[in-house]
Amino acid sequence: MSHRLPTRVRIVEVGPRDGLQNEQQPISTDLKVELIERLANAGIATIEAGSFVNPKWVPQMAGSDEVFRQMGRTPGVQYAALTPNLQGAQRALEAGASELAIFAAASEAFSQKNINCSIEQSLVRFKPVMELAHTAGIPVRGYVSCVVGCPYQGEVEPQVVAQVSRQLLDLGCYEISLGDTIGVGTPASITRMLDAVAEEVAIDLLAVHLHDTYGQAIANIYASLLRGVRVIDSSVAGLGGCPYARGASGNVATEDVLYLLDGLGIEHGINLQAVAEAGHFITQALGRPNGSRAGRALLAKSD
Amino acid sequence: MSHRLPTRVRIVEVGPRDGLQNEQQPISTDLKVELIERLANAGIATIEAGSFVNPKWVPQMAGSDEVFRQMGRTPGVQYAALTPNLQGAQRALEAGASELAIFAAASEAFSQKNINCSIEQSLVRFKPVMELAHTAGIPVRGYVSCVVGCPYQGEVEPQVVAQVSRQLLDLGCYEISLGDTIGVGTPASITRMLDAVAEEVAIDLLAVHLHDTYGQAIANIYASLLRGVRVIDSSVAGLGGCPYARGASGNVATEDVLYLLDGLGIEHGINLQAVAEAGHFITQALGRPNGSRAGRALLAKSD
Repeated sequence: MSHRLPTRVRIVEVGPRDGLQNEQQPISTDLKVELIERLANAGIATIEAGSFVNPKWVPQMAGSDEVFRQMGRTPGVQYAALTPNLQGAQRALEAGASELAIFAAASEAFSQKNINCSIEQSLVRFKPVMELAHTAGIPVRGYVSCVVGCPYQGEVEPQVVAQVSRQLLDLGCYEISLGDTIGVGTPASITRMLDAVAEEVAIDLLAVHLHDTYGQAIANIYASLLRGVRVIDSSVAGLGGCPYARGASGNVATEDVLYLLDGLGIEHGINLQAVAEAGHFITQALGRPNGSRAGRALLAKSD
Repeated sequence: MSHRLPTRVRIVEVGPRDGLQNEQQPISTDLKVELIERLANAGIATIEAGSFVNPKWVPQMAGSDEVFRQMGRTPGVQYAALTPNLQGAQRALEAGASELAIFAAASEAFSQKNINCSIEQSLVRFKPVMELAHTAGIPVRGYVSCVVGCPYQGEVEPQVVAQVSRQLLDLGCYEISLGDTIGVGTPASITRMLDAVAEEVAIDLLAVHLHDTYGQAIANIYASLLRGVRVIDSSVAGLGGCPYARGASGNVATEDVLYLLDGLGIEHGINLQAVAEAGHFITQALGRPNGSRAGRALLAKSD
């Protein structure tokens, strides 16, 4: 396996969706739109801008239609939407999403508890979404959750992650994002998992989506880069908590990832200072602490 | 250079000294003593319990004499004291410190601003401390600060770090702790620095002392372990801010380091849950947020 670092990495910003959906308070469309525009202006080329799930379950994302309609579009930026089913995918395409995202768990227990069906059934349900996207000429990204651990079943076998990843690829996804949903991984388990998945899916088609629940996310990203991973999901200001452990950290912060990449001499094309300012803007507006350490340090320096 | 991880790592807990000295409020002797006793009971074998500097400059450490006298001692645990000069070293030995620590910067600008003399002069000044410790049969640890960056001069040459480390070793220190005082390192700069120092000082005699200002500390520790480093300084609950950037994070949290080591299968002999509880105890007593992500997640789970 490779120990050479990639020369360029693509960041997938998930703050406006995966981040904000875990906030306790309602968030205005204007605020979401300004956040997305700031992130696009900072040079982020893929932004998950909303989700078209049932607002009964995720009320914070109820206004995703308006968000997609209101926001200004920067040429070259992909604006992605998480879609749980055909109805959501249709709404997302009507609202102008340029990319869709579907998801499956690598844990049977999580799949049953979270979406009330088996992993296999969840994949079958996405077939009409894939057909719709294919007809519309829209790329679809696949998320795999619980890639190293599950809040219900504990450890997750790397082979199951590899298999689900392969199935999402076979469904037509252009990229598979491997999510450590509860942030229990360390470089050892992340590397073991990546090695297993890379036997089924080329490393170029893999992204990592790591949560910082136990403070390991940046180390896990470093380990992933050493394995040749070139796409990293992250969330400005570390937006998003962990729904399985109150008070615990959620998504890895985009600012901290960019600081790492800069230090490693890996290109990313993003203005870190502008992202830090976007992080300051949104955390001030939400009245919550800034979860990015690099962001806080940069803002303290520029005070 | 080695890419094999060590099988066992020793933790040097610096929270009661490097952590608490950066707190804004006065801290009672009783509180310090209980923290130290909890950490020793958790299985930590080296604890920096105080410092014998001029209380004019570091008022939080004024009571170190009483702390050393009051605390119960666990057999096999080293209780270290930071000592800036002969007078401090004498007080530390009288109070019963079982280990001393001296320090030098790898940055001329930092040395001048921080202790008002050159690196060379600072080393000469420690000779009487080393003689006293040698006569008393007490081991001395050497700290090097600013090993990858300095708040005044910016970048620091790895060769200077290597040279200062070598000089501290030649003075008689049994171990050299390499401090990224302002937390600007990433795995690339930390590895470059370690490779340079390892040409002058055997890797077995090196420790890393990393601050999490930019969220890189755990990744930097992972990179250090890959280089063969077997001693890690850390601070329970991430106690200690960064005096050079208000609001920024300070020391890496012991709980996060232990979680990393557990994940990597590296022995450390410490009860992580007990350390997390000590972190909860001290942050509650100080009324400050818990800076350990693993600590917060573990405490949320055991609620």
